[in-house]
Amino acid sequence: MSIPATVVTPPLVNELDIVIPTIRNLDFLEQWRPFFQPYHLIIVQDGDPTKTIRVPDGFDYELYNRNDINRILGPKSSCISFKDSACRCFGFLVSKKKYIFTIDDDCFVAKDPSGQEINALAQHIHNLLTPATPFFFNTLYDPYREGADFVRGYPFSLREGVTTAISHGLWLNIPDYDAPTQLVKPRERNTRYVDAVLTIPKETLFPMCGMNLGFHRELIGPAMYFGLMGDGQPIGRYDDMWAGWCAKVICDHLGLGVKTGLPYIWHSKASNPFVNLKKEYKGIYWQEDIIPFFQNVTLPKECTTPQQCYIELSKLVKEKLGPIDPYFEKLGDAMVTWIDAWDELNPSTDGATTAKVEPSKSK
Amino acid sequence: MSIPATVVTPPLVNELDIVIPTIRNLDFLEQWRPFFQPYHLIIVQDGDPTKTIRVPDGFDYELYNRNDINRILGPKSSCISFKDSACRCFGFLVSKKKYIFTIDDDCFVAKDPSGQEINALAQHIHNLLTPATPFFFNTLYDPYREGADFVRGYPFSLREGVTTAISHGLWLNIPDYDAPTQLVKPRERNTRYVDAVLTIPKETLFPMCGMNLGFHRELIGPAMYFGLMGDGQPIGRYDDMWAGWCAKVICDHLGLGVKTGLPYIWHSKASNPFVNLKKEYKGIYWQEDIIPFFQNVTLPKECTTPQQCYIELSKLVKEKLGPIDPYFEKLGDAMVTWIDAWDELNPSTDGATTAKVEPSKSK
Repeated sequence: MSIPATVVTPPLVNELDIVIPTIRNLDFLEQWRPFFQPYHLIIVQDGDPTKTIRVPDGFDYELYNRNDINRILGPKSSCISFKDSACRCFGFLVSKKKYIFTIDDDCFVAKDPSGQEINALAQHIHNLLTPATPFFFNTLYDPYREGADFVRGYPFSLREGVTTAISHGLWLNIPDYDAPTQLVKPRERNTRYVDAVLTIPKETLFPMCGMNLGFHRELIGPAMYFGLMGDGQPIGRYDDMWAGWCAKVICDHLGLGVKTGLPYIWHSKASNPFVNLKKEYKGIYWQEDIIPFFQNVTLPKECTTPQQCYIELSKLVKEKLGPIDPYFEKLGDAMVTWIDAWDELNPSTDGATTAKVEPSKSK
Repeated sequence: MSIPATVVTPPLVNELDIVIPTIRNLDFLEQWRPFFQPYHLIIVQDGDPTKTIRVPDGFDYELYNRNDINRILGPKSSCISFKDSACRCFGFLVSKKKYIFTIDDDCFVAKDPSGQEINALAQHIHNLLTPATPFFFNTLYDPYREGADFVRGYPFSLREGVTTAISHGLWLNIPDYDAPTQLVKPRERNTRYVDAVLTIPKETLFPMCGMNLGFHRELIGPAMYFGLMGDGQPIGRYDDMWAGWCAKVICDHLGLGVKTGLPYIWHSKASNPFVNLKKEYKGIYWQEDIIPFFQNVTLPKECTTPQQCYIELSKLVKEKLGPIDPYFEKLGDAMVTWIDAWDELNPSTDGATTAKVEPSKSK
């Protein structure tokens, strides 16, 4: 009698999509092949749709360009940014999976201090599948990790934790700095491997970077809108920040957890600080008002889904941030359009119809 | 002309006292000699005052036993615990320095992953002398550390930070677990060196461990009361927790920062979990009410000194926690006595008289 060979199924292989905004470098997928190949990829091509993105053989993927976005969303496509990596959120819309991992194409496989290649995706999955602890800080960091636990004085009633909605990973080599810091410290590299994952406490905001990010699409996807950036918009490089502020206050409201720390990826190259400054400068002063707005936002108890929370937030954005600049009126409208698009492509089980989603290319 | 030899003065050598609650092991000071010898030690002898504590030659110290505490504080000595390491806070009272570092005698010099001995005191001093960032989370941890900074999206108006009042260090080897966790995981050891220091965000509580702790005595000392524990009291092992909850809400109120993370010490031995369970069990269920109390506490704007905050807190403790157990009435009174004793031994410059403080032994 032959014993069947053991097949190790990668975790969440049928429940997670990898979303990548454009691929400018064939090497990117080759490097990640051992880790990504079992998963389904959604590539959202940024910029000129006539250009061809080559995907190496062996990957299971679907690719959407601007023409596809316009075709699929019709007038609602106005909410999806053009010529900016913010377009990635279109991939979150069209995915049908429970979880998303999104990564930039200048992020490669990093090594841990022992020289071992880091399976970033596996760490995100671990972060997402274990609870978070937003109500009290554990000084030994993630209490669910092997070799760790809750320390003395941690209330027992809080040890069950809450469901983790977001896993925010970090970057070795080029740190995620703003243009002024890039200009002041052109040679700074992040070489410090901090071996920790921790929950960002309730009511604390953080700068969420979209380079290396996992999230629970069903629970928080509707709040993961990357805003209006790039072509025709007054700012850029605040797409992930916007999503992070919105998602964090909604996670706090809904009792969901947000983790940051491991895994690291290798961020290969710094973007041009002069170009970045031009994209960022309005954001740099606007954020001085935006942060207090998000720090003080309160969502009504009646909002029990991320969609409801997001619509409520869109109203507050128009009301409270509108006076700063007409951009926020437009952004508030786009937030509503985004939720309309979300609900159209992700109908609940009550029999609503789904829009037809067909990529340009798939394999 | 001869060039004078460079003398490296250890940082804060005239502005910091090391407070140690009892020394049961001569080896303790021998191991720390390279790091502690330049500093002044305050040893608070716990338990039987007729026993002799031997201090190796070469250390500059003063030693207080229970008789000294009674003599110096008179009736106010009731606020200092007996037969419990909580007695250490007497050392905070009698110090005249700006900063305190306190450490337990079962904590030894740890090594970092490169095998280098860790100068825990130097790291605490670094933590205390650089600002903290309680209003927004920085994903690359301490932004003031070499090789790190604030990441993209961190508001520029918050980058000045606030004064750091508390530096909470961690432990390799024996983790600081409560009795139930010790019983369940008798063999667990902390082997993970997390190379990070971070600010505990505003309005987030944490379990402050007194084993390896630095603080700014002038700014937060009056809140560093270790409560009524040990002999004649219904609980133990909540002394540092109590100080941590009180100090954190007062830091939040006064706009001061609290950091946790590096430095590590080597915690050599686990205390007896059965004895610990007896000491802790009331605390384990009381803390389920104490934590929400501290999470919801609001101090009046008029309180602008740690003393004023602490007196206000003592009233709230009696009012809100008194109904749980008469112990909290007694504790509330002891908090007031502590502040009386603090003010007596630390008069402001308005000409108040100081009580005479004379140790049993000094060198």
